[in-house]
This record gives sequence, C-alpha cells and structure tokens, in this order.
Amino acid sequence: MEFLSDELLLNSGLAVQLYRDYARDLPIIDYHSHLSPQEIAEDRPFFNLTELWLKGDHYKWRLMRNCGVPEELVTGKASDRDKFRAFAAVLPAAIGNPIYIWCHLELKTYFGLTLELDERTADEVYDRTAARMKDGSFSAKRLIARSNVSALCTTDDPMDDLAFHKKIAASGFETGVYPTFRPDRALRIDRAGFAAYVQALTGKKRPSLTEILAALSRRLDYFCENGCFISDHALDNYTFMDCPASEAEEIVGDALAGRHPTDGDAEKYQTYVLSFLAGEYSRRGMAMQLHLCCRRDNNGAKYAALGPDTGFDAIAQSKDSHKLAAFLDALDRTDALPKTIVYSLDPNDDRLINSVLNAFQSPGTRGKLQHGSAWWFNDTRFGMAAHLRTLSEYSVLGNFIGMLTDSRSFTSYVRHDYFRRILCSHIAQTVNDGEYPANQETLSRLIKNICCDNAKNYFQL
Amino acid sequence: MEFLSDELLLNSGLAVQLYRDYARDLPIIDYHSHLSPQEIAEDRPFFNLTELWLKGDHYKWRLMRNCGVPEELVTGKASDRDKFRAFAAVLPAAIGNPIYIWCHLELKTYFGLTLELDERTADEVYDRTAARMKDGSFSAKRLIARSNVSALCTTDDPMDDLAFHKKIAASGFETGVYPTFRPDRALRIDRAGFAAYVQALTGKKRPSLTEILAALSRRLDYFCENGCFISDHALDNYTFMDCPASEAEEIVGDALAGRHPTDGDAEKYQTYVLSFLAGEYSRRGMAMQLHLCCRRDNNGAKYAALGPDTGFDAIAQSKDSHKLAAFLDALDRTDALPKTIVYSLDPNDDRLINSVLNAFQSPGTRGKLQHGSAWWFNDTRFGMAAHLRTLSEYSVLGNFIGMLTDSRSFTSYVRHDYFRRILCSHIAQTVNDGEYPANQETLSRLIKNICCDNAKNYFQL
Amino acid sequence: MEFLSDELLLNSGLAVQLYRDYARDLPIIDYHSHLSPQEIAEDRPFFNLTELWLKGDHYKWRLMRNCGVPEELVTGKASDRDKFRAFAAVLPAAIGNPIYIWCHLELKTYFGLTLELDERTADEVYDRTAARMKDGSFSAKRLIARSNVSALCTTDDPMDDLAFHKKIAASGFETGVYPTFRPDRALRIDRAGFAAYVQALTGKKRPSLTEILAALSRRLDYFCENGCFISDHALDNYTFMDCPASEAEEIVGDALAGRHPTDGDAEKYQTYVLSFLAGEYSRRGMAMQLHLCCRRDNNGAKYAALGPDTGFDAIAQSKDSHKLAAFLDALDRTDALPKTIVYSLDPNDDRLINSVLNAFQSPGTRGKLQHGSAWWFNDTRFGMAAHLRTLSEYSVLGNFIGMLTDSRSFTSYVRHDYFRRILCSHIAQTVNDGEYPANQETLSRLIKNICCDNAKNYFQL
Repeated sequence: MEFLSDELLLNSGLAVQLYRDYARDLPIIDYHSHLSPQEIAEDRPFFNLTELWLKGDHYKWRLMRNCGVPEELVTGKASDRDKFRAFAAVLPAAIGNPIYIWCHLELKTYFGLTLELDERTADEVYDRTAARMKDGSFSAKRLIARSNVSALCTTDDPMDDLAFHKKIAASGFETGVYPTFRPDRALRIDRAGFAAYVQALTGKKRPSLTEILAALSRRLDYFCENGCFISDHALDNYTFMDCPASEAEEIVGDALAGRHPTDGDAEKYQTYVLSFLAGEYSRRGMAMQLHLCCRRDNNGAKYAALGPDTGFDAIAQSKDSHKLAAFLDALDRTDALPKTIVYSLDPNDDRLINSVLNAFQSPGTRGKLQHGSAWWFNDTRFGMAAHLRTLSEYSVLGNFIGMLTDSRSFTSYVRHDYFRRILCSHIAQTVNDGEYPANQETLSRLIKNICCDNAKNYFQL
Repeated sequence: MEFLSDELLLNSGLAVQLYRDYARDLPIIDYHSHLSPQEIAEDRPFFNLTELWLKGDHYKWRLMRNCGVPEELVTGKASDRDKFRAFAAVLPAAIGNPIYIWCHLELKTYFGLTLELDERTADEVYDRTAARMKDGSFSAKRLIARSNVSALCTTDDPMDDLAFHKKIAASGFETGVYPTFRPDRALRIDRAGFAAYVQALTGKKRPSLTEILAALSRRLDYFCENGCFISDHALDNYTFMDCPASEAEEIVGDALAGRHPTDGDAEKYQTYVLSFLAGEYSRRGMAMQLHLCCRRDNNGAKYAALGPDTGFDAIAQSKDSHKLAAFLDALDRTDALPKTIVYSLDPNDDRLINSVLNAFQSPGTRGKLQHGSAWWFNDTRFGMAAHLRTLSEYSVLGNFIGMLTDSRSFTSYVRHDYFRRILCSHIAQTVNDGEYPANQETLSRLIKNICCDNAKNYFQL
Repeated sequence: MEFLSDELLLNSGLAVQLYRDYARDLPIIDYHSHLSPQEIAEDRPFFNLTELWLKGDHYKWRLMRNCGVPEELVTGKASDRDKFRAFAAVLPAAIGNPIYIWCHLELKTYFGLTLELDERTADEVYDRTAARMKDGSFSAKRLIARSNVSALCTTDDPMDDLAFHKKIAASGFETGVYPTFRPDRALRIDRAGFAAYVQALTGKKRPSLTEILAALSRRLDYFCENGCFISDHALDNYTFMDCPASEAEEIVGDALAGRHPTDGDAEKYQTYVLSFLAGEYSRRGMAMQLHLCCRRDNNGAKYAALGPDTGFDAIAQSKDSHKLAAFLDALDRTDALPKTIVYSLDPNDDRLINSVLNAFQSPGTRGKLQHGSAWWFNDTRFGMAAHLRTLSEYSVLGNFIGMLTDSRSFTSYVRHDYFRRILCSHIAQTVNDGEYPANQETLSRLIKNICCDNAKNYFQL
C-alpha cells in the first residue's frame, strides 16, 4: 500500500467501505482535551510547524531526547527552524510510533503534503507549511472548524472564572466548547500548595472540610451554568480508604496546621472528597472521569529545570485494583454513582477494569460505566486495537463512547481519523471471519454510535 | 465470509481441512461443567429459549445490564417472551463478544437457524424454536447425546449424596457423568456458615481439624466409588502459608469457638487443608483443579437482592504469585503433588503460570501440571488464541488436555466447536508460516490429542 | 509455505526482499551470551548432537520433563543416542515452541538437513550429523566463524583471571571475544558464600564495604584492560533502597560477623553497591545490563539433586517497579547513570519499562537507555514480535541495539536469523499498511542499524 494511502490501515474491502460510507465524515465529539480556552477565545494563529507542533508537545520532546538531541534543540533557545530540523532528522527512526503517523497525517490533512518528513525534506516542509500559514488562516478556531468538531471539552481548574469559555460562547462559534471540572489541587492534600489552594477556594484562612466541600459544590454549580457536563480526576493509583466525616475533618485540620499527612490519611481524605464529588456529579447528571496509574515527574533534574508536563512521566504499575470495585460499590450503595469513565495508564488492567465496571451498570443508560479510550502512552495503533478487542470480548463494544484527543494541539484531530480506521478494520475483521453478519444497516449504526452518537447520548448533547 | 459459514474462523485452506478431517467430529470430554445432575437424571426438557438461555446464565444478564435493561427483564418477573425480546434487542451491540457468537452457533447447531438475532427477528426466533421444543425433545440427556459428549463432570459439594449420579449411571446413559469433589465450604474458615458446614460434615459439635480431614477423606472415598477422578478448588488468590498441625488445629478451635480468623490464620488453615487434600488426590491418582484470582459479589446491593453467581463477579488482580511455586514445591517434597490444573482469572499470569508449572513436571505423565483452558471472562476468541500461543511458546501445546464448557447450559457444547476452529487456525498458521511440517499424520495426532485423547489419557478414562 | 522455506516467517514480498537484501548477511554482534571462554580458547570440537544440544541446555530438559521423560534420559546416565532418541520423540508435541524451530534451523544451517525430527528420524539424524562432525570440524571457533559473528561477549565473574580471553585474543581469532563483568556474588549479601567471596575478592578476612568497592573497581580496570565494555546484574526484582555509606558499612560488618541480613538490609546493600558500580561503568563509558524478575531454583528436590541452572527457574511477578525510576533518577542526579539495558522476565512490564527509560535519555547517545531484547522464556516468535511492537509504539525502534543469543551453545546463532525474519516482517507490515514509506534507503538503514550498526555504535566497537 502506498504511504498514507486513502486505504491506510484498512485491512479489507469491507473495512474501506465502512470507513468511507459511515465513519470518515462524521463530526467529532472530543470530550477530553487539554486545548487552551484562551487560544480558542482569541483565535490564536500559528505561523510555522515549530509553533504548531514543538512548542508544547512533550510526546515529541521525549522522542527527540531518545535520539540524543540536546535540550537546546528540544525546549531550549534554538531557532524554530533548527528545532524543526532536529525533529525531522530523527523522525524516520520512529517507525510505528504514533508520532510518526500523526505528523504525516497532519501534513496531509491540513497542508495537502504527502512528503516523507526527514532531514532531507525538513526545510522544504518547513517553508511550504509556513507559506500556507502566513495569512493567519491556521488559527485555533479555523482549525477546529475545518476538523468537523461539533463539541469539545477543555480541562479546567475549579477556580477558573471561565471567562474564555464565556467569550467563546458569546462569539457564536459553532463548535460547542465546554469546561471540564478538574479539582485535582483540592484533592492533593499531600502536595505543597494544598493549603494555599483551599484557602483561595474557600476564602477562609483555616477552612474546614465542610467548607471545602461547599466551595467545590458552588464552583461545580458555576461550571454547570457554563455548560460543564463532565469532570476529571488524576489519581496516582487505585484509591479507596473509607473513613467517617469526623476523621476526614481532622485530617484537613492537621494538614492546614502544617502537619504532612501520612499516605493513609491522604488516601482517606481523597476517598472522602471524591465520594462527595461523585454524589454531586450524579445529582447533576454529570460524568466523572478517573485517570489512574501515572507516575509523574520521574526525572528530578529535569523537573527542577523544566517543571511538570515536560516529558518525564511514566506508567505506574497498577496496585490494589480491587479498590475500584470497593469504591464503586460504596457509591452505588448510597445512590451516588455517576456515569463514570475509567482510564488506567497500565494496560495490563484493561480486562480487569471491564470485568469490574460491568458489575455496576444500571438501568436506563447504555454503558453507564465506561472503560475509556486507550490513554496517552497506550494511544497507539496496537494499543487502540487491543482496547477495542477488550471492549468487544469483556464488555459491549457497541456501547462505547469512543475516541478523544487528550491533546494540547489544534491539529491533533487526525487521531480521530486514525481511530476510525482501526475501528472499521476491527469490525470488518469480525464480519470477514464469519462472526457477525454483513448487514449494512447494523454495521452503519454500530459505527455511527461509536464514532459519535453514543457520546452525544451519554453526555446528553 | 458469510455469517456462520462452515469456514467460520478458519484462516486458511489448511485450517479448513484440519478442522473438517480431524477436529470437527471428535467426541467431547467435558471435564469441568456446572450442569445440574438432577436435570440430567430427570432428563429435564426445555420449552423455550428463555428457559434454555436466560434463566440461569449470568453472562447474558451482565450483557443486558450493560445495555441498561431493567432488572425486571433480566432476572425479574417479566414474561419469558419479553425477556427474550429484551435480550435480542441488545445483542447486536455485542459484536465480538462470545455471547454473540455462542447464541448464533447454538441457533444454527440445535435449531438449524442461521438468522441474525435482533429486535426485528426476536419473535420469529422465539416462536420457531419453541415450536421445535414443544415435543420435549430438547431435554438434558438428548441435548448431551446430540452433542457427542462421551464424558462430562459436574461440580459437587463433598456432602452431596450423589443420588442423581447413581440414577444417571443406573439409567444406562451412554455419556459418562462424573462428580467433581469441590470442598470450598470446608476451606472457607473465614466465611459465615463454616461452623455449620464442618459440623454437618463430621457429625460433631466441635470437630477438630483431624476430624474434619478424616471426614473429607471419607467423602472422597465415597466420591471415588461413584466415579469421581477430579477435584476443584476456588481460591481468591495465590495461597500458601505453611504452619504446623498444632497451629492449624488451634485456628480451627478458635473459629468454632466463634472467633473470626485473621487473614493470615485463614490462609494457614487453607494451606493446611489443601495440602492434605492434594496428598489424598495424589494417592488416588486424581487430578486437582485450582481456580484462582476471582473477586466475587462486588455489588453489595445486588448481592443482597439476588445472591451469589448472578453476574457481579470480577477478575482479581494476581497477588503474590510466587506462592504457586512454593505450594507446588511443598507438595512435591512430600510426594503429595497430584496432577494439577491451574486456572487464573487474571490473564496477565498466563506466562508466569506456565513457567512455574514446568518446574514441577514429572516422569510418566505428559503434562502432569496443566495450565487450564482460558477461563470465564477470558473464554473468548482472542483469549483462547492467546492461551494457545502461550502454551505453544512457554510450554508444550501437544500435551494440552483441551477445552471444557464450565457452563450451566445444555447447549453450551458449541464452545468446543468454537475452540476447535481456533485451535485448527492456530496450528495451520504455524504450518503456513513454515514453522512446522505439513505432515498429515503428525497434525492429525496433534489435533486429536488436544481435542480428546490427552484428556482421556490424563484422566485415565 | 514449505517447512523451513527460505521465506520462513516472512509475511509478504516486501518482507522477503528486506530480509534477503539487507538483513540476512549482516555480521552478528552477540553482546550477551553464556558461551564458555575455555571452550572457545581450546576450540572444543563436538561429535554428536547430544553433546552439542543436550548436555548443557536446560530449555530442552524442561521440554523433555514436560513430556514425562525420566530424568535418566534427561540429565542422567543414559547413552547419548538414547537421550537424543528421547528428545526427538517428544519434539513434535512442541509445535510453536522456540526449541522446535531452533533445532530444525540448526539442522538446516549447520548440517544442510531439512528433515523433520521425530522418533522415526531420530537415528538417521543422529548418524548423519555425527558423520559430519567426525572430523572435528564442528568446533567452537569454527562454528563461531561459520556463523558470521564479528563480536561476542561471554559472562564472567570479577575474579576470573581472563586467561582464556587472553589466549583467544592472542590466537588471532577474527571474532572479538570480550568478557562481561558480572559481580552477582559480590552483591548477594543474603546468600551463603558471600563472606568467602568478598574475602577472596579483597584478600582480607573482614573486608569493609570500602575495601570491597575498591577491589571491584580494580577488577573492573582489569576487565577493561582485557576488552570489557559491558557489565551484567541479575536482580530478583526491582531494587532500590537508599542508605548512607555508614549504614551500608554496618550491614557489611554484620553480615561478615555472621548475622543474616534482613530483606531490607540486603536491598540497601545491593542498592549501594549497584549505585557505586553504575558510576564506575559510567566513568568508563561501559554499558550496564539489568536482568530482572526471575525466580530461580523453584524445585527444592531437583535443586538438591542437580544444582542451579538445570531447568527449574520461573518468571517472578514484577513488584515495586516504580523503583526502576527511583534508581535511575538517583544515578542521574549524581551523573552516575551509564548506558543501561533493562530486561524483565515478566513481559507485563514491557510498556512500563519503556515509559520509564524514556524519562532518562540524554544528549549525545541514541537510545542510551534500552529495553533489552525479549529474554529467556519470552524469546519466542510472539514474544519478540510483541517486544518490537512495544519498542515501536512506546519508544523508538530505529535506536534498538538488537538481538543477542543468551545461549550456552555454539549453534544458537540461528536465533539471530529468526529475529531478523521477525524484524523484517514487522517493518514490512508497517509499510504495507501505509504507515511508513517504501523508501529502500531508509528501510535499509533502519534494518542495518537494528541488526548490527546500533550495537556497534552503542558499544563503540
């Protein structure tokens, strides 16, 4: 097959047909991203590929560092052109890495280039793309619009005033841009900055747990008034350690008095607050996302120099995963279990997660508990294929709410295209092996549901 | 390929030929099932698909709940027809799920229907199958006979009087129906009901450990007199904590005096009893099955309403798997290691299990220690294929004792057909890739061994 | 495809072309083996297949034991011919096992035989190969030379005088034969024999930690003078427990005074010594290999009878894998992080390992931290394919330093051929799916790098 052919990854005639007829042109519902609301509100334009690709993407930084590229050319003071050259020069070694295919799909989709990017073509690619961007047409909103995105969610701190979201909504932008409630800082009682954060959140010098929860609840109301229907939590690992309110109050009091909590106390506090919030989400019909098993900031020297989210995170080995069932059961018993989407960075968990979630499904919602799309390091061709196989065999594929970008970049929407190809090949294979009928009506519904309609229904958009 | 084609899942001409010539028509030895001896003895007839499929199958209940079907239509008071309609309506979403293909294979095999089952065809399928069942010909014994089953094992409590097994044997039924010795209740010292159970077992008010073991040994004799050659144990996770007899006696004494054992004491007791029983199995030439890493009854509310085995179990993360080697070694040192079949519900264990078992094989028996067939949630197309690959690469595929149904249903025998197709494709692939000679004699022996003869020899049937 | 066809495992025309044009004829750099320097120095000849295959290969012993072969015919006193017959008789059951294909590839490569080895052909194969070996031409050096090996590393204790390596170097043998520094015995403070070992190493009756480290450093100098550029460490599991020098000194003192260290103390000592050595390797530009997650000598009775390395080892479940990041970070902060190659016997770790290593790459070296080739039980077709997929998706395949034999046998070089076929199929598949351009120049460089040039550059050969 030709490089970047229209039939890319489509493993049979049926896969090609399913992709072309049903999947390709569906709108995108991108329910989890890290796009900047400010850049959208201000419709920030991009003028070269280094701005678009290399300024904020720690996936690409890791790749360059793996190839021995000096930090100067990664996050340092080198020129945009030199950084791009350094990136292009190492890209061919990354055969099969999602970055390789994403970059080339972005060149094809947004610039009409099917060039092979390497050290020989670096300047040509840089110049031709810069020429196309010169008129400012590669701006945040225009890129979103070109990408056929009907809705997207950003990721936001509870204290965010959502001014940019209001501005976007007021601008009549046709893509719905919604905030996500991500109160990690209110839950990380073991981190420096916790006291300052909850003080700011509550406006009190020594807020009680009750006051913190009340403040979170008020911010949640505010988020919902501004279109929010989804929350997100990053947890180091599986978390559940029950305790009475009085004990949780004491833990907060101790922490605000400057005593560092034990691991157990931190987990109790997190369990308490997370359980409270789950109930709040449930009452409001919101969905809760749990992102589990990431070990961040592993490289101390680089953390000191560059800060977080700069390419030094890793998979954390899954631990005590029975706590997932215990947590969901505790919520379920008190009618506080919201729609929940679970992601683990440890792919060994995939089958277990599905087996646990399916013990807590409930009437009225298809797939109320979801095993979220292959996440981060696992967002690869075989990672996605394995995730789809697991959903099919250990759960119900047809109820899956589908792909998201999880990205900081406005050209990452090609990931949805990549996903849809893998999905169509997965489904076509099942049909071609004789395990599912070649009924176009059923297949069409299945694909539309997974690519778009399930998410629409799940989030009641 | 056409839906449910004769070539279903067969990945090449060679696979088709191997399946047709060697695998397809072999008798079934179903050495692990949950069929009801009473239903067999009484040759219970079934009159509609809800009776046959939906009354006792928690796999299907989970699928329905995942799709938001109300409990009324799952295990509740809705009519048989309405339940079937609800099931049929959600089935198409389950593409690639074993339930999807099992149902359709059962319709084809037992009713000659190759219809696609969905909400549109639900009534037609229900009515046509009910018409076929009307004359009572879809009864336990007739279904077993039609399925070419030469031997099957039920799963039985040591206190069972085996009256139904005797009745079956006396009836001249041509399929051998054998009891399995499953003494879980005598091992679960940490569960309510333990005291009552061992009191009933021993006929003593405060039985000692010695009396419990003697009673188990007597029941085992009785089981063996009635054809038993296999035992089964469900263990939450890997279990091995050695202790002297005196300590085990004390633990029993404490438990019967009403003191709840610590986790450590419960594990010591289990280790002691399991080790004793292993020796008993070994002396009698019996096989021991260990089913590991299941976390049961996760949903408290549903457990209260519906009890155990109703679709709320999950995979338990494997923990301390080094205990498997320690346990086998302790048995081996005292000549108390029986033929052993290990199943873990955590599929991440598969390679480790094979590497451990192969440190304890012994002269005279091919594959004395076996990594059992892909179990429960893992009994899927890719689960079975992965299991076969692991056996091939980390052990010796040709010594595998093969498939079992593990089912409560009399039409589940299609799972053997499904397995045989996957097996033939696995073997054909190895040949087609040039890694194994296309020698029909060798291939035929290999397939017959795995489908049938290995189990026959292993269990000395 | 015909058995052992030239196109064995090559999944497309492109794969065949890549293998033939680029991979097949490249020299081998075998940077990790267990070949005997003495046998090389003395150019030991082999006279039959039992000598060549069955005298020292515990992989094959396990296979025979799995098939119930009595120990007499495995490691016992049976004749060479009888042992070979016993092995040949069970081989056909091992379809898909690497031993099956390795044996047949060795027969083809070194003897020109494409016979199927089984009980019927056992004598013919034995006799024809013995006839070929009769003239002494199947000797260590000649087999290495025939195999196109440009460099190989043996595995050596620090106290080895390297006399055989000197003899080999002096002989003008065209293959570079280099020692590997493997100081396991100096690190296993919890094992019997530690005191005697460090006494011999230092020449002191009660050596201090400082003296032990100094002695290791001197031996390392000596190894480097004799061509050493690589070290190796076997660790039971992930290891990192920091402690000050004074505490480590005390732990040594206690151990030498006859007090068995606690697990924690043993880990502290290991961490201390390993960190010291890592710094030494780093200063010398050497690479450090870490072999993790093996549980050895599981079968007590067999250990007593046969000793270590006789086929009773197993995969150890990965535990506390976050220690890998902590260890690398501690080294990195003190500029003591050498080129490092990590192997885990637990294949569930593969993705995590890559995500951790890529947080510590550094400028100037491509792939300074490497996830080593699929190891031991995982050195199989699907094990290698999975490893290559993981490298591609979670790291940078083009920087991989490639295959090694890890073998005690002089005909194991076919494993490189087997690997190269799997590699070419992996790469061809990526191209054929449209994910990578069919650019012969790039593909040729990629394949040559992975098969040979990356290792050459990495080790500065």
